[in-house]
Amino acid sequence: MNKIITISREFGSGGRTIGRRVAEILGIPCYDQEIIEQVADESGFAKDYVEEYGEYKSSGGWLSDAFSVANSTLGGMSNSDVLWVTQRKVILDLAQKGPCVFVGRCADYILENKAELIKVFIHSDLECRSKRIVEMYGENSVTPEKRLKVKDKRRAAYYRFYTETEWGLAKNYTLCLNSGEIGIENCANIIANLYKTENCE
Amino acid sequence: MNKIITISREFGSGGRTIGRRVAEILGIPCYDQEIIEQVADESGFAKDYVEEYGEYKSSGGWLSDAFSVANSTLGGMSNSDVLWVTQRKVILDLAQKGPCVFVGRCADYILENKAELIKVFIHSDLECRSKRIVEMYGENSVTPEKRLKVKDKRRAAYYRFYTETEWGLAKNYTLCLNSGEIGIENCANIIANLYKTENCE
Repeated sequence: MNKIITISREFGSGGRTIGRRVAEILGIPCYDQEIIEQVADESGFAKDYVEEYGEYKSSGGWLSDAFSVANSTLGGMSNSDVLWVTQRKVILDLAQKGPCVFVGRCADYILENKAELIKVFIHSDLECRSKRIVEMYGENSVTPEKRLKVKDKRRAAYYRFYTETEWGLAKNYTLCLNSGEIGIENCANIIANLYKTENCE
Repeated sequence: MNKIITISREFGSGGRTIGRRVAEILGIPCYDQEIIEQVADESGFAKDYVEEYGEYKSSGGWLSDAFSVANSTLGGMSNSDVLWVTQRKVILDLAQKGPCVFVGRCADYILENKAELIKVFIHSDLECRSKRIVEMYGENSVTPEKRLKVKDKRRAAYYRFYTETEWGLAKNYTLCLNSGEIGIENCANIIANLYKTENCE
C-alpha cells in the first residue's frame, strides 16, 4: 500500500499551501487542482462547478434537496452524487500511482484501508483565517467572518452527508494542527518529519 | 506569561507518559500526581477521591445530581464544585512558578489567557488503548473496551460541565495526536520540538 498524506482543512487555514509545501519537502506529488481538472474532464461538469460542489454541500435549501430526492426516486443520480462518484474514482486511481499528498475532497475517508494514511486536519481561529482570506481573495461585500462561517458549515455538511463521520473531530485524524498558532512552515515540517519517521509501536 | 504545555488525553492513550517525557526532554516540571496531592491537602478530600472526581463526572446519575442541586440551592457547594475550585487554584498557583507541563484536569481551560499555552490532545483507537490498559492496570471483570467507553464518557461530561466546551474537538487545541499511530516517543518529540520552535506568523 502506498504511503499517503491526506489534508482536510478549514477554509482560510492555509491547508492547501501546507499540502504543497509538504509534497515539495518530500519530493512527492500534491493532488488538489489536478483532482478538479480530472473530475471535470470525466464528469463533463465545468471546473468551477466541480470546485464548488465537490466539497461543499449546496446552499440551495429544501427546494434543491427536494429536486435531488425526486431525481433519485426516478432512478437518476443528483449532480452532487455524480460528482461524488467521479471524484472517488479519480482519487482512488491517483492513489494507486505512488506516495502523494491529497488536499481536501474527503480523500481521508475514500482511501481508508486502501493506503497507509497519515490523516491531517488543519484549522485556525476565525481571526487568523479572516486575515488570510482577505489577503488572498480580497475584500467582499460580505464580512470575512460571515464568509468563513458559511463555508465551514457547508463543508462540514458535505463531509457528514457523504462519509457519515463528523468533520474536525480529533479522533478521526492522525494529526490536527492549528496553523495560526504553529505557523504554516512549522506545520509543513511537522507533517513531513512524521511521514519520514512514523511507526506504530 | 509562562510558556506552558497542557495535555488532555483519552484514558489509556499514554498521555501521562508523553507529558512526563516532554517535560524530561525540555527539563521543566510535569504536574500530574502533584496536583492531586496538593488538592487533597488543601481540600481535605482523600487522594483517591480527588483522582477520581477531579476529572470524571460522577456516575451516580440523577439522584446524586439532585442532591448536588439541593445542596447548591441551600447555599452549599457540592463536593465536586469544591474540588473544582480547589483544583483551579492549585493549577493557577503552579502555573505562576515557571514553564511546565500539565496533564489533564482541564488545565487548558483554566489557564486560557493566563499563560502562553500549547494545548495538546492525545487520543488513540479503542484497540490500542485496550491493549495498553490491560498491560498497565491488569485484567478486570469488565472488558477493557467497556471500561474505556465509560471513562471516555465521564471525562467528556466532566469537561463539558465545567468548561462548557466540547472535549476532543480539534479546534480547541494547538495540536492533536493519535499516539497509537504515531507512537509515544514520536509524540513527545513533536511536542518538545514545537515548544522550542513555536511562533505565530
